[in-house]
Amino acid sequence: MDVIVGAGVVGLSVAWRLARDGRPVTLVDPAPASGASHAAAGMLAPVSEVSYTEAPLLRLGAASLRRWPGFAAELAADAGLPGAEALDLRSDGTLDVAFGADDLAALDELAAYMEKLELPVERLSGRECRRLEPMLAPSVRGGLLAPGDAWVDPRRVTAALLAALDRLGVPLVRARVGELLRDGGGRVTGVRLEPPGGETPSQTPSQTPSPAASAEPGGRASEIRAERVVLAAGAWSAGLAEVPVRPVKGQIMRLRSPQPLLTRCVRGTVHGTPVYLVPRGDGELVVGATQEEMGFDTRVTAGGLYELLRDARELVPGVTELEVADVVAGLRPGTPDNLPVIGPSGTPGLALATGHHRGGVLLAPLTADILRGEEGELAALCAPGRFREIS
Amino acid sequence: MDVIVGAGVVGLSVAWRLARDGRPVTLVDPAPASGASHAAAGMLAPVSEVSYTEAPLLRLGAASLRRWPGFAAELAADAGLPGAEALDLRSDGTLDVAFGADDLAALDELAAYMEKLELPVERLSGRECRRLEPMLAPSVRGGLLAPGDAWVDPRRVTAALLAALDRLGVPLVRARVGELLRDGGGRVTGVRLEPPGGETPSQTPSQTPSPAASAEPGGRASEIRAERVVLAAGAWSAGLAEVPVRPVKGQIMRLRSPQPLLTRCVRGTVHGTPVYLVPRGDGELVVGATQEEMGFDTRVTAGGLYELLRDARELVPGVTELEVADVVAGLRPGTPDNLPVIGPSGTPGLALATGHHRGGVLLAPLTADILRGEEGELAALCAPGRFREIS
Repeated sequence: MDVIVGAGVVGLSVAWRLARDGRPVTLVDPAPASGASHAAAGMLAPVSEVSYTEAPLLRLGAASLRRWPGFAAELAADAGLPGAEALDLRSDGTLDVAFGADDLAALDELAAYMEKLELPVERLSGRECRRLEPMLAPSVRGGLLAPGDAWVDPRRVTAALLAALDRLGVPLVRARVGELLRDGGGRVTGVRLEPPGGETPSQTPSQTPSPAASAEPGGRASEIRAERVVLAAGAWSAGLAEVPVRPVKGQIMRLRSPQPLLTRCVRGTVHGTPVYLVPRGDGELVVGATQEEMGFDTRVTAGGLYELLRDARELVPGVTELEVADVVAGLRPGTPDNLPVIGPSGTPGLALATGHHRGGVLLAPLTADILRGEEGELAALCAPGRFREIS
Repeated sequence: MDVIVGAGVVGLSVAWRLARDGRPVTLVDPAPASGASHAAAGMLAPVSEVSYTEAPLLRLGAASLRRWPGFAAELAADAGLPGAEALDLRSDGTLDVAFGADDLAALDELAAYMEKLELPVERLSGRECRRLEPMLAPSVRGGLLAPGDAWVDPRRVTAALLAALDRLGVPLVRARVGELLRDGGGRVTGVRLEPPGGETPSQTPSQTPSPAASAEPGGRASEIRAERVVLAAGAWSAGLAEVPVRPVKGQIMRLRSPQPLLTRCVRGTVHGTPVYLVPRGDGELVVGATQEEMGFDTRVTAGGLYELLRDARELVPGVTELEVADVVAGLRPGTPDNLPVIGPSGTPGLALATGHHRGGVLLAPLTADILRGEEGELAALCAPGRFREIS
């Protein structure tokens, strides 16, 4: 049996795909779908996300984006939803806009690079940008349209994954993993669960314990044995194994709009920081996101909110009239080379599915496929073995 | 019996004072202490609030501020609290600061005006301001200290008033008043309650109905007869009688600080809009407030939040590190001359206690005294008769 540690979009996707393959799986998470996945905007934007130093990340993203329509359709079916629309999957492209001469030069450079990679992008004038998106600021001087970029509502995706797993009968243990179990030879053989209390988030009493869980005298399951442990605990992964993952804080805001202000994702660099606006089908407009190296700090701060609001106003002045519906902070799992860490670790019995940084939602389908055994160049790009310290 | 319509800080204070005098009172409000009082910052700052065109308002504020220590002490005693400290009543003064030459000139003018009125204020240099409040921005060039200004936590005050009224046995009917009852001669004789449902906020089933309430066949109290109805419904007063009161929207933010950033209230004008910071004993820092003519709109908006954050940062840059604990919008009851409307109306049986705009918390003790029959020049300043349309 596989034990998946972490029920964010990555762990849930891996568990769902493995369970569909007929593999016995148990998920462990004290608070499923509440971390970075809950804060994520859900941009599936490998083209516009890339900087020209990040060709490997672009290739991973493009490969995972191609998997998304099939992934979403199957997920919707398994979750009992009418179709992928129920996940708010939309493919209307991303528009990167520029304000000043420096921004325009950077867009030109990016466009040239994209064309070299034969990626479909379109260079637009300021007027053309406003023709596509009339609410854009008059100060927008140019843009780059990535027509193939898409987005999805991550909260609907994780809810659908939880529903699909429930229908497949996959046990979900709401507990925190205290440590990995290892045998005398160093092989990982399972996980030890922390007792509830102190730092552990709320436990659902109706939770079905894993069939493989052993019980303490008090009746509390404390260990789960596994043939393979898949560590998908995002920024918290480094607490359980030697993985070079660190928390990168992101604050993000959801605004409520009576009618949609935008028809596609819009990104730009304002005051040197990137900001994006993602429109949802229900009129919600997501504004993201700060990038802060603050350790395990998930406070929503005055400074973070200020930056988001300031930059969103510069892109689309009309946002000032919108209601603030929600503000949250999440912790992305960052890695030294900005690439995820996916696949078997150096330790027998331990696989990794972490380090997705800003790309967890986009890369979830590809990650699941690598954990299902997909090999090749893409899997090699993510292989844990590239870091010496992993164990 | 008096029926008080509205259980904000004004209606609650009037009810409490009348009940203490031994007068039978019933309060009616669908959601006590949830309107402008819930959003208020609680500055008791008649001196720093005033502009030199508003001498009458200054006199009212100064008179009510003098009543506050006694009011708070008696309220604490009646509510079963250890003392006025439990209301977070503090008297460390307000510091008005200036950034540019225009601001400095305005402070000088205000200082001269205050001195003419023999009000204690102190003109400070930028350095002296920072000596008092080291977290102030380096760009602060001068200030005016009003050492007698105070502040209080309005949420603690309304909670204490509710507790005191409960201990005095005053009935609180959680219902919305649909209209005032009038007899053939035009005299107001009571209130008709709206049935629960549709627009009515949650009803507490355990609520004791007024002893004077009549019952419909369904058992639902629908009317309350009264010798006098006191209309204290804030911005909603105009819906029940001809009172020139309009809603003035204010958005306000509460930040959480591990240690206090300020020791007194700080105000300033940033980008042409006034902003203030009020420190609470528990480390909370209140940032307020927008002033918007938006009708009955209580949405927290991106633009409102942006202005508060931008202006607070200019005054005290360190706020950026603080956690955002709470953001709300309230509706102040504004009047054409910025003075409250307190006392008997032109209609027999109807008295008014509304139109307090930004001064509801400050003016509550004085308002209660006028409703208890206090006469004189101060009462005359607030008299409803100054508006022709009141009835």
